[in-house]
Amino acid sequence: MGRVTVRKPVVRLTAAGRRSRPDVLAAEEPLEVRVGGRALAVTMRTPGHDVELVHGFLLTEGVIGDRSDVSIVRYCDGVDDEGRNTYNVLDVALAEGVPPPEAGVERNFYTTSSCGVCGKAALDAVRLKTRFSPAADPVRISPSVLGALPEVLRARQKVFDSTGGLHGAGLFTADGEPLVVREDVGRHNAVDKVLGWALLAGRVPLSGTVLLVSGRASFELAQKAAMAGVPVLAAVSAPSSLAVDLAEEQGMTLVGFLRGDTMNIYTGDGRIA
Amino acid sequence: MGRVTVRKPVVRLTAAGRRSRPDVLAAEEPLEVRVGGRALAVTMRTPGHDVELVHGFLLTEGVIGDRSDVSIVRYCDGVDDEGRNTYNVLDVALAEGVPPPEAGVERNFYTTSSCGVCGKAALDAVRLKTRFSPAADPVRISPSVLGALPEVLRARQKVFDSTGGLHGAGLFTADGEPLVVREDVGRHNAVDKVLGWALLAGRVPLSGTVLLVSGRASFELAQKAAMAGVPVLAAVSAPSSLAVDLAEEQGMTLVGFLRGDTMNIYTGDGRIA
Repeated sequence: MGRVTVRKPVVRLTAAGRRSRPDVLAAEEPLEVRVGGRALAVTMRTPGHDVELVHGFLLTEGVIGDRSDVSIVRYCDGVDDEGRNTYNVLDVALAEGVPPPEAGVERNFYTTSSCGVCGKAALDAVRLKTRFSPAADPVRISPSVLGALPEVLRARQKVFDSTGGLHGAGLFTADGEPLVVREDVGRHNAVDKVLGWALLAGRVPLSGTVLLVSGRASFELAQKAAMAGVPVLAAVSAPSSLAVDLAEEQGMTLVGFLRGDTMNIYTGDGRIA
Repeated sequence: MGRVTVRKPVVRLTAAGRRSRPDVLAAEEPLEVRVGGRALAVTMRTPGHDVELVHGFLLTEGVIGDRSDVSIVRYCDGVDDEGRNTYNVLDVALAEGVPPPEAGVERNFYTTSSCGVCGKAALDAVRLKTRFSPAADPVRISPSVLGALPEVLRARQKVFDSTGGLHGAGLFTADGEPLVVREDVGRHNAVDKVLGWALLAGRVPLSGTVLLVSGRASFELAQKAAMAGVPVLAAVSAPSSLAVDLAEEQGMTLVGFLRGDTMNIYTGDGRIA
């Protein structure tokens, strides 16, 4: 299970010449999520915190809204060719009364019956599914607290230090206290691990918090934040147009290019004061 | 259709204070891919080069292997709430005799009937689907040519310059001549646009070429390169463990941390000389 990194030989080429040495890489393995024995999705992720990942995934897809909506999560006991458990299949049993998801969540999510799938349809889908609206969250965060967070996130990205290959996501209080930091080869997985941790800790909806991501803010990441009731989403890099539209629609604060004491506030600037 | 960027107001916060100004963002919209009228996938992409994108997607999912496998691609003529064509649904008609894909390509791709889904199963799936093996490609590339490519890619990323929000992918000859550069909010889409361009130009399998990506090299990107017969995949950042495994298995050269005259060669270092 400690397969967060993998050692591989590498030929390092520099102006000084060519030499072989071992290199440390971020591990990537498929994780299959099953619900009630039926395959729902496969994600390429860095092993570790898989139970959090699956809770975060089901939360942000609108399948569950509380930890009590899940009765059991267990690694399926299948084995690979060499007889070892792969630890790459998690089977989830939902609590009684929780409707199972439709197959193909990802695709059904945006697909409308008409031909006119558009950004608006994607926004509508999130609005229909959100249980927790961050719109009324009165939290205030000072720019100096916010500006210090990327450094805190970076310092806690332990695997990034050795591999340079992982996205990071961190959850913070409005005072800048870190609650949890997770890393993954997939940025959506890093966010799902953070939000799943929060769900398991009984902290969802995540009022009064900031979710910080190490890269860009896409629609998908903004959607995940909204589904967990996060009022402030901050990104070290640029947001996409649809991420800004979603943040506006959901009453979230969206900050991009967060670097020290400079930042762009795209929506909800009243919370940054 | 020229919706590659979108203008939004932003509050810019610096040490000098707070001021409002317009900002340019990378556009993100859902694209639904239909085959024979049936929805196959929805991807969040930057509009533009959609026909290339859908060709690249179908190529790298193993549905088509040549431009003649597609008879028609057209924007579905549905409209949004305001009566405008969304240009977000592409319907593909495959040529006679080309078997349609199974629904839910993404999930079926990795899912085995056993419980033991693992990295090996993912590698097996690619091996079964690849029509073009790059293993025997005799191409040689000099380190100095390779080291110059990131600068060329960067200079041609026009939308990145204005938004900071797009991934880039570029295809080059072994002499370092750029063939095509594409940008997208999703790095897999940028690669699909490049590979779809190549398919439409009759250049697949892409022997003798280098595919360069502006970020990290994941399993998914290595898989796409392999499916198009690309012998050399280079990334500005780190590869994942499974990307290296796949490159090794497919006889591809995989270069990471390509920065000026330094680089890490993970597999197939004989081609870099």
